[in-house]
Amino acid sequence: MNPSHSNRYSVILGNLGNTCDRFLPTGYKQVPPKSELIRQAASIPGVTGIELVGSWDITENNAEEINAELGRNGLTCVSIIPDLFSQMRWGNGSFSAKDPEIRKQAIDETRSVSRIARKIKCPLINLWLGQDGYDYPLTADYSFQRNVLMEGIRTVASEFPDIKYALEYKPREPRNFSFQARAADTLLMAMETGLDNVGVCIDVGHGLMAGENVSDSAVMLQHYGKKLFHMHFNDNYRSWDDDMIVGSLHVVEYFELLFWLKESGYEGWYSMDQYPYREDGASAVGESVAFLRSVEKKLTTERINQIRTLVTKGDATASTRWMRELLFRIQA
Amino acid sequence: MNPSHSNRYSVILGNLGNTCDRFLPTGYKQVPPKSELIRQAASIPGVTGIELVGSWDITENNAEEINAELGRNGLTCVSIIPDLFSQMRWGNGSFSAKDPEIRKQAIDETRSVSRIARKIKCPLINLWLGQDGYDYPLTADYSFQRNVLMEGIRTVASEFPDIKYALEYKPREPRNFSFQARAADTLLMAMETGLDNVGVCIDVGHGLMAGENVSDSAVMLQHYGKKLFHMHFNDNYRSWDDDMIVGSLHVVEYFELLFWLKESGYEGWYSMDQYPYREDGASAVGESVAFLRSVEKKLTTERINQIRTLVTKGDATASTRWMRELLFRIQA
Amino acid sequence: MNPSHSNRYSVILGNLGNTCDRFLPTGYKQVPPKSELIRQAASIPGVTGIELVGSWDITENNAEEINAELGRNGLTCVSIIPDLFSQMRWGNGSFSAKDPEIRKQAIDETRSVSRIARKIKCPLINLWLGQDGYDYPLTADYSFQRNVLMEGIRTVASEFPDIKYALEYKPREPRNFSFQARAADTLLMAMETGLDNVGVCIDVGHGLMAGENVSDSAVMLQHYGKKLFHMHFNDNYRSWDDDMIVGSLHVVEYFELLFWLKESGYEGWYSMDQYPYREDGASAVGESVAFLRSVEKKLTTERINQIRTLVTKGDATASTRWMRELLFRIQA
Amino acid sequence: MNPSHSNRYSVILGNLGNTCDRFLPTGYKQVPPKSELIRQAASIPGVTGIELVGSWDITENNAEEINAELGRNGLTCVSIIPDLFSQMRWGNGSFSAKDPEIRKQAIDETRSVSRIARKIKCPLINLWLGQDGYDYPLTADYSFQRNVLMEGIRTVASEFPDIKYALEYKPREPRNFSFQARAADTLLMAMETGLDNVGVCIDVGHGLMAGENVSDSAVMLQHYGKKLFHMHFNDNYRSWDDDMIVGSLHVVEYFELLFWLKESGYEGWYSMDQYPYREDGASAVGESVAFLRSVEKKLTTERINQIRTLVTKGDATASTRWMRELLFRIQA
Repeated sequence: MNPSHSNRYSVILGNLGNTCDRFLPTGYKQVPPKSELIRQAASIPGVTGIELVGSWDITENNAEEINAELGRNGLTCVSIIPDLFSQMRWGNGSFSAKDPEIRKQAIDETRSVSRIARKIKCPLINLWLGQDGYDYPLTADYSFQRNVLMEGIRTVASEFPDIKYALEYKPREPRNFSFQARAADTLLMAMETGLDNVGVCIDVGHGLMAGENVSDSAVMLQHYGKKLFHMHFNDNYRSWDDDMIVGSLHVVEYFELLFWLKESGYEGWYSMDQYPYREDGASAVGESVAFLRSVEKKLTTERINQIRTLVTKGDATASTRWMRELLFRIQA
Repeated sequence: MNPSHSNRYSVILGNLGNTCDRFLPTGYKQVPPKSELIRQAASIPGVTGIELVGSWDITENNAEEINAELGRNGLTCVSIIPDLFSQMRWGNGSFSAKDPEIRKQAIDETRSVSRIARKIKCPLINLWLGQDGYDYPLTADYSFQRNVLMEGIRTVASEFPDIKYALEYKPREPRNFSFQARAADTLLMAMETGLDNVGVCIDVGHGLMAGENVSDSAVMLQHYGKKLFHMHFNDNYRSWDDDMIVGSLHVVEYFELLFWLKESGYEGWYSMDQYPYREDGASAVGESVAFLRSVEKKLTTERINQIRTLVTKGDATASTRWMRELLFRIQA
Repeated sequence: MNPSHSNRYSVILGNLGNTCDRFLPTGYKQVPPKSELIRQAASIPGVTGIELVGSWDITENNAEEINAELGRNGLTCVSIIPDLFSQMRWGNGSFSAKDPEIRKQAIDETRSVSRIARKIKCPLINLWLGQDGYDYPLTADYSFQRNVLMEGIRTVASEFPDIKYALEYKPREPRNFSFQARAADTLLMAMETGLDNVGVCIDVGHGLMAGENVSDSAVMLQHYGKKLFHMHFNDNYRSWDDDMIVGSLHVVEYFELLFWLKESGYEGWYSMDQYPYREDGASAVGESVAFLRSVEKKLTTERINQIRTLVTKGDATASTRWMRELLFRIQA
Repeated sequence: MNPSHSNRYSVILGNLGNTCDRFLPTGYKQVPPKSELIRQAASIPGVTGIELVGSWDITENNAEEINAELGRNGLTCVSIIPDLFSQMRWGNGSFSAKDPEIRKQAIDETRSVSRIARKIKCPLINLWLGQDGYDYPLTADYSFQRNVLMEGIRTVASEFPDIKYALEYKPREPRNFSFQARAADTLLMAMETGLDNVGVCIDVGHGLMAGENVSDSAVMLQHYGKKLFHMHFNDNYRSWDDDMIVGSLHVVEYFELLFWLKESGYEGWYSMDQYPYREDGASAVGESVAFLRSVEKKLTTERINQIRTLVTKGDATASTRWMRELLFRIQA
């Protein structure tokens, strides 16, 4: 861990565009063209990376062109997310679908995105398998479906050992239960592949929604073989994936999390993943980056040492007071 | 209360069509034409009523035509829901919007739907004000916005005293907090209008999601002046509005609810409101009606008297045993 | 509303002593004698009030003696909480018990505490009816029990018009469902008594646990006739009544709440109600007061005006940025 | 899997006695002497096993005497639970305590209980480490504490290879976060010990409270090396460990769970773990056993085959209908 190392910030491109919900499928605002979104991302202070969604943002045909455009804007593609969730065919699952033809398509789609990644030297595929789960009692074959899910990931990841695969867990939505629901179960599946290039992505909001203490989850993933591959940032009220501006609610928890990410040796990107339904996308995402950079700036070597003492001692009142005095500059 | 009175079942027409989520705005299936949906609704055993959404299903121009088509299928329009939630203009609220022009439009839209209702002799307008709420700290003017919301409803309802207005509460979604969030706060607002024709609609799933005991909420609404005007039925896992098949999860709670609806003198419709995202709409909605009719059939006069004894006595073990013996026909 | 008016801080005396849970009925620490607890409370900077629990802390026999001891320590008794929850006889309810003899005892106990209050000029009785609820389906007679509960409160409150009765709601615990569960339902019952001296107490943790936005609840109670009579402060993770140090988690929400308490004209006490199970009681409660005073100090007239502008405008990014810049003194 | 094999039912002895909460440390009822509790347990139809708590119910000194008394009543001791949670010294953790002296005591206490188990041929130690967790941000050293926790378990379990150690997870209470919180993280720790005799105990209520689908968790534990060692049964409203009568709420989920326990080859005991705060203990626990036996009786070979077809097909409407027709004997 090198505390003087600066965090690297990125954004998911689509967050700057339109985002819809189930009541207003067109979304609440007009969406600018993609090249404008790229320019907006590049203009956010501190942002040097971009995450793209396969087929939405990048395909095997236009990969080099898109990559060049990113480069002209001073941006790097830090991750690609295969679209295994927003097409009708994935409605009953992708890698875990009961239909073997769909499972084959999921593998092929991920292969395709892996080829794109290799082509543009993007080091990481982020797999969010949102449709891989179930809704009702007595409708899922848990054992069989978990197994084919793991095997599908292993198949692709073993073919692309130069690329990292980060499994992004989420407890629910769009399915009522997900197969990759929390840090530990997803880690178990990553370990089961037996492949070094399969790890986990923490989306902070998904962790909050799952009832996790996200700092604890991050440390746990690092403990079992440095398996924290990627981070998505946003905020919510702990009961749903509200995808809000980072730090709009969980100031204290974010402070602790950024400490532990450094302390546990996380060296990946800090990527924004929000749904600014009613807000100007670039401003809302920019405010998230500004929050994280504000916390980063407060985490001086001196304060890091103070936090180490606090967590070793474990005095709730002392820890709370330390945080308050930092935020309010008032000594009681 | 007349226990021999049969329940009247209806469905929201749109439930039979396509339903989307934020990841797949097109929905997971193909949607048949509206006339086919009406035929499907009419074919569900026990269903004699339909709920329509304003502008989606019915307008001032086609009201009589649609009503005639319902009639030819043996159906009655039991409620119309103004579309105050699925248009870009309502994104920051309808009756409670900060922009007075939007508030005016909300009033006008509800007036228009009220004229339709009057024209086709539909007795009830169901107001679900999903966009009327807020998302972030320090962004809502609670006092002002609640007040204009109440005044907007009072304005329209006082102009149409022959029509009932049922306010359908929901704790959140699409906003992170709703102004009409739970039974009691919505009742307070209904009472504040001072109008007899303003009451409350319970959507059972919204109540579960709000942490309510829905039976208790229903009884409370009836206690304060027979203010339970309408009922929407679906099921969920208590943390989100999953809009599932009725009785797929909460068998015991539904049993108790149907008892209390009768006991407290509810005489409105039993209307299905689901989102069968991946299921055949007519089958899924039909199964909901079948569940409620199964419970209704079990609620014989003899059993109603037994339940009265159980709730008076309040012995948890005895009540649980009674329910188990009814469901399993096994005496321990 | 007078923004220059200083908040008045108090503590519940028992919070400084031992607190237990269901696994360790003796609690996790040794409890000092009561006179020592009173001295500790008096030594917390800013604290000038005390809340007592009937029979635990004060009885008709020792009322004047206890009051004198408070006075010698520079403390005022701001509220008394009748013990209607920690005796075996209340296990199935107090005012709402099915047994009329128990209901009579609840009324008598509250009368007794009211006489104490009158004797020592304590202006407020805080009623937390924790046992008044139910656990299982088919065991409660909602209508009857709510009614006798309301009548019991009305009986006592009408006999002591010079004393305020604050009903403290909580969604659950120790019962799985409470009759006075949320701000709005409790307000309805307070209004139903028809008495000016019956209002509501918000325990912030109970509100968070109920899924409420507590600022909105406070404003609502004030809107319907200045019915916010009392405030209890603590913090939790939104799913349970963890009774933690104030501001240890919800920094932003507390900032907003203190604004709205002033803005809506709340002039009652700011009373700490925590369970410092494993912490030194006086330090933990003292840190809560220090947090609230830190926020109060930041709420200058200038910032109050800025917040008024923010809530009128409703721009989520701007509000979030304003809060961040205040806490981190960093402009993005 | 042998579907004709009958389930074996047991109860935790203390459930029949008094149970308290944080508001009434004495509990809500009188407790009979232990020998009477044993007689009550033996009289529940179907119960042949008992779970004991170390030091509460059994010590190295009285082990053989207690065991003989169980035998005289036709009962077997199926598991012992070391008391690592209800003594002041464990307040800040047992195996994961920051104080090395406390960690040593936790190991010694578990060794002592293991010797008891060996002496009376009890095959399993159930470890519920309720105090091993944390409450506030910036107070836990996640990495260090998880590690010593795992090592403590490994130390004892390696010394008693003839005894099974089942780790019982719970997301929270009495701590706000537990180190062994969910099925998957607990399994990871069990696997990390590298010992065949360390596995997991599912308490169904803890799983519901953690947002798990308990059937899925059971299948997952069995998938990774038959690691489901023990089962505790009770029911709750999914937000807290209400410890209610089994099947009082989750009829459908319990039906599915009993299917999957058989299907995944679980051959351990079905043990009742409730807190009948206000109910007669023996009746309430007896009703739980009656519920599970009712479900077991319905799970005929024919129906097991039907369920296999349903979970393979995954048609939500068909599965829901099947369940309804079984419970209501009504074909739609």
